[in-house]
Amino acid sequence: MATVTEAATRLDTYRDLARQLRVDSIRCSTAAGSGHPTSSLSAADLIAVLLAGHLRYDFANPRDPANDHLIFSKGHASPLVYAMLRAAGAIDDDELLTFRKLGSRLEGHPTPILPWIDVATGSLGQGLPIGVGIALAGKRPLGAPYHVWVLCGDSETAEGSVWEAFDHAGHEGLSNLTAIVDVNRLGQRGPTELEWNMDAYAARVRAFGLDAIVIDGHDLAEIDDAYSRARGAERPTAILAKTVKGKGVSFLENKEGWHGRALDPEQARQALAELGQSPARTFAVTRPGRWEPPVMRKGPVALKTYAEPVATRKAYGEALAALGAARGDVVVLDAEVSNSTHAEDFKKTAPERFFEMYIAEQQMVAAAVGMQVVGLVPFASTFAAFLTRAYDFIRMAAVSRARIRLSGSHAGVSIGEDGPSQMALEDLAMMRAVHGSTVLYPCEGNQAAKLVAQMADRPGISYIRTTREKTPVIYDPRAEFPIGGSKVVRGGSGTDRVAIVTAGITVHEAIKAADALANENIAVRVIDAYTVKPIDAAALAEAARVTGGRIVVVEDHWVEGGIGDAVLAALAEKGGVGELRYRHLAVREMPGSGKPAELLAAAGIDAAHIVAAVRELAR
Amino acid sequence: MATVTEAATRLDTYRDLARQLRVDSIRCSTAAGSGHPTSSLSAADLIAVLLAGHLRYDFANPRDPANDHLIFSKGHASPLVYAMLRAAGAIDDDELLTFRKLGSRLEGHPTPILPWIDVATGSLGQGLPIGVGIALAGKRPLGAPYHVWVLCGDSETAEGSVWEAFDHAGHEGLSNLTAIVDVNRLGQRGPTELEWNMDAYAARVRAFGLDAIVIDGHDLAEIDDAYSRARGAERPTAILAKTVKGKGVSFLENKEGWHGRALDPEQARQALAELGQSPARTFAVTRPGRWEPPVMRKGPVALKTYAEPVATRKAYGEALAALGAARGDVVVLDAEVSNSTHAEDFKKTAPERFFEMYIAEQQMVAAAVGMQVVGLVPFASTFAAFLTRAYDFIRMAAVSRARIRLSGSHAGVSIGEDGPSQMALEDLAMMRAVHGSTVLYPCEGNQAAKLVAQMADRPGISYIRTTREKTPVIYDPRAEFPIGGSKVVRGGSGTDRVAIVTAGITVHEAIKAADALANENIAVRVIDAYTVKPIDAAALAEAARVTGGRIVVVEDHWVEGGIGDAVLAALAEKGGVGELRYRHLAVREMPGSGKPAELLAAAGIDAAHIVAAVRELAR
Repeated sequence: MATVTEAATRLDTYRDLARQLRVDSIRCSTAAGSGHPTSSLSAADLIAVLLAGHLRYDFANPRDPANDHLIFSKGHASPLVYAMLRAAGAIDDDELLTFRKLGSRLEGHPTPILPWIDVATGSLGQGLPIGVGIALAGKRPLGAPYHVWVLCGDSETAEGSVWEAFDHAGHEGLSNLTAIVDVNRLGQRGPTELEWNMDAYAARVRAFGLDAIVIDGHDLAEIDDAYSRARGAERPTAILAKTVKGKGVSFLENKEGWHGRALDPEQARQALAELGQSPARTFAVTRPGRWEPPVMRKGPVALKTYAEPVATRKAYGEALAALGAARGDVVVLDAEVSNSTHAEDFKKTAPERFFEMYIAEQQMVAAAVGMQVVGLVPFASTFAAFLTRAYDFIRMAAVSRARIRLSGSHAGVSIGEDGPSQMALEDLAMMRAVHGSTVLYPCEGNQAAKLVAQMADRPGISYIRTTREKTPVIYDPRAEFPIGGSKVVRGGSGTDRVAIVTAGITVHEAIKAADALANENIAVRVIDAYTVKPIDAAALAEAARVTGGRIVVVEDHWVEGGIGDAVLAALAEKGGVGELRYRHLAVREMPGSGKPAELLAAAGIDAAHIVAAVRELAR
Repeated sequence: MATVTEAATRLDTYRDLARQLRVDSIRCSTAAGSGHPTSSLSAADLIAVLLAGHLRYDFANPRDPANDHLIFSKGHASPLVYAMLRAAGAIDDDELLTFRKLGSRLEGHPTPILPWIDVATGSLGQGLPIGVGIALAGKRPLGAPYHVWVLCGDSETAEGSVWEAFDHAGHEGLSNLTAIVDVNRLGQRGPTELEWNMDAYAARVRAFGLDAIVIDGHDLAEIDDAYSRARGAERPTAILAKTVKGKGVSFLENKEGWHGRALDPEQARQALAELGQSPARTFAVTRPGRWEPPVMRKGPVALKTYAEPVATRKAYGEALAALGAARGDVVVLDAEVSNSTHAEDFKKTAPERFFEMYIAEQQMVAAAVGMQVVGLVPFASTFAAFLTRAYDFIRMAAVSRARIRLSGSHAGVSIGEDGPSQMALEDLAMMRAVHGSTVLYPCEGNQAAKLVAQMADRPGISYIRTTREKTPVIYDPRAEFPIGGSKVVRGGSGTDRVAIVTAGITVHEAIKAADALANENIAVRVIDAYTVKPIDAAALAEAARVTGGRIVVVEDHWVEGGIGDAVLAALAEKGGVGELRYRHLAVREMPGSGKPAELLAAAGIDAAHIVAAVRELAR
């Protein structure tokens, strides 16, 4: 008898909360004059039951490491996110009504400028793979008690990244992850591909290794039961909830043409009248039990030093291994090429903190974003060319204010025989154009190691570009390479006639060129701009001043967006450097296969071409 | 009895061909000293049966529109590709042995510099979605008899894009498509996720709407039967072939550590001895029946003209519709946002040539690449921010020498309330760094329409960036906007003191600024650089000369890689323009939500900020 009453009370609470979430979703979006109320209404019951019955979260302490994680992969349901925060007492009604206004924390799509939001969403298909990362981190190395809940839209299951996420969840047996799919049948411009074919959804997620629970997403008891089962399951669960877009308001329910459209004030009045009275209540949310994450060792990092030629990708792997030995918070992810990127060196040192992501670059970057949410220090690697696969995830990681580290190996034509599909020639452009990013491009082992060590504590998105081929060691192992700096490796006096600015593999071509030109009495300054962003503007300006603006930039990258553009922008922004006499040696034609040296020559970026360019400028 | 003999003869042919393919895969990779022989050996039987028994292809006439299409999605099996071409008589043995050498057509991964290759592969997970595009085009609008065969690796099924492809194949019922998955259990660095779990593969592809046929990939009769069933099926088929990596050579079979590794000459001798004699034969391949594609109408394009403010995205859609009415070869794809990108205007005109790709940007771009293979003229659109999702596909489209046209709407902070997840702020950088690309950014309707019309006949990858908000009409509908050009919209005399270079939405801010500055007697030249790539270097140099290098660049894009970098690179490359006095107004901080005008102001790229920058330079 008591149980029945308790259950009835619980369902009443859910019902009241769901009504309030609907009311507030409409109120805030109508006040904003834009937003996605109907996509919020379809999921209001799902979120009400989760918040009041299943989530373990201390809204007064969003940094509690024991808190569950709730990600709205369908970030456009932001009215529901903010209505939920208001119902939990995290924000007040005044703030709720600032939705989408300049300066408000309540942006059009949720971002972590709100402390209760882990990551930015709004580019569909990203929340679930990020949730996989949080769940992986919770399983190992943290051993955390938290559960990860991800609210997905049905439209976004068209994104392959969602299936990468289901695949990894199933493969890793992430029982601490629950995907809640709000199958409201309608996308932006009309019906989704599968509409309400719940059997098709269930077959797919089961085939990918998850438990599937199909429910009526507006039946509070069914939802309640599904969440209990999901938290207790031994496998990851996908709750497939058949819902109605615009649910609760007759003129919105299951209607096309209402996606991303706010109600006008008169429509809102009608809608609120239909929904009924909803006094502004704060609902109790269960707090998690006490739990502290394991203490992360953080000792001094013993980097290897190099005297013999070594590939910077190898130095990357060995520096990762040293970091892994010294620090317990460093984790490494790789997209099934760890024997090429040399992330495998870390795996040998700290296998429990190495994550094989198979050939799923989007999931790899998303998992890195998820892992940094819970305080880990992720490094993720693949061939630099294949990081282009994850560009949307990298872009969104910046919106998430995430701290992740990416390593791209096999950059440029100098990889040789494998040909253009494997040659990153746009990665510098891509990574420079990420907000707040750091872009590093070492030319040899000692430098690479020192840069990798610094990446561990670098905010934002940092990227290191590594080279397939071995390169000679040119720096003393004790040399320091601060991010933002550069090195003068040839010349450096006031009599330098031309400056060569380069980084990575072509530093060695520039050195050969400078040495050859010295025999012709042409003094050349070679600048190793190992930090492509932020580039060392002071060193560039000084070089321009000394040489009368005679600058040759050499890079194993397309003409656009790389070192050349970075150099010109830095000099122009700085100003006062006089007129430039500029030559840009970069890749201008589609390369083919060949030996590394042949391809550097064919692209016009080897020592011989540098010599010719310098001679021309020095005339 | 005759049938039994015929069957035996057929199987003998397959066996001989398979042996020759294995022998030649080893010979050419050993000669090259690199490559992927073991990944070729696992699929040799699959390709032998296809080539000698099922493919309908005229190797003497690779442009025959009736030819089947065969794509090696696992492009690293290039030794097998080239061995196949030799067996078909398309190339000779001398050329086979140029594999991976400088200047050879036989690159490390196949590219369309060989006339028998439709598209470049080597970035995994792309061949199948491209095959979907070819199959879609074959189904409609071409009504072609060809069949599309795609050889996939098992490792690459970890890529979400493969599931986007299966999803679209199933949804569209592409019975003219067969995926052949070479399940050889071993990836680059070890076992794949699913190894030989054929049931898991079968469950997955069936759940995505395909027929699945599980076979022993070395049983020639089973393969033969599977191909017959696949060609005759009413749905798309996935043939899941359990194979052994390195099959046929005892010391390679199912061994780790042999991925991407050529045999040395001694190992090759042993391997060839095991495989047995294989006289160099040319095998007959069945030619397709005669078929000509429907004649494509190509009449004059009647573009709409504009006198009232219109969003360039709307002008894009209406220009597409005009193109669609005039030309039968234009096809349009959109990622479920056609009411935002306005691709829906084309759909209303030519629904049979409109392809709804749902929210699967990778599949969308891949399908566009596939459609241009068979002579169609694809335009593909989504929010510009979400084209980042497909960057690897765009990069590879350039390696494929593909002609595709991309449209990204909702660029920049000027979209307003939706916030940074929806704002493309890196698209110009991303698209400039694509080999041979064209990057267009119109500021108003008449200009947008004229540019869209030109894109139809533009080689390479062309990109148009459109704006969410309506913008005033500033050009006469009769004005022409040649690609590579620019327009001077204010000033233009020898007395201009400062030049403002901009494009798109900020052209209107620059005009307001110039008009305000005119009242202060500061003559300003405003250049509308509607072609960001190739940018109008002559006009920029002339402006620099006239103004003494006083240039302000304004753009609704991150600081890096966009119009500013393009302007500086053009001026530096041109040379002789004297010293620059440069101000760059671009987005430097992460934007939030707000009204478009508020966000332009907050980013420092509105008229007021332009006025301030010009005043400073004019001092």
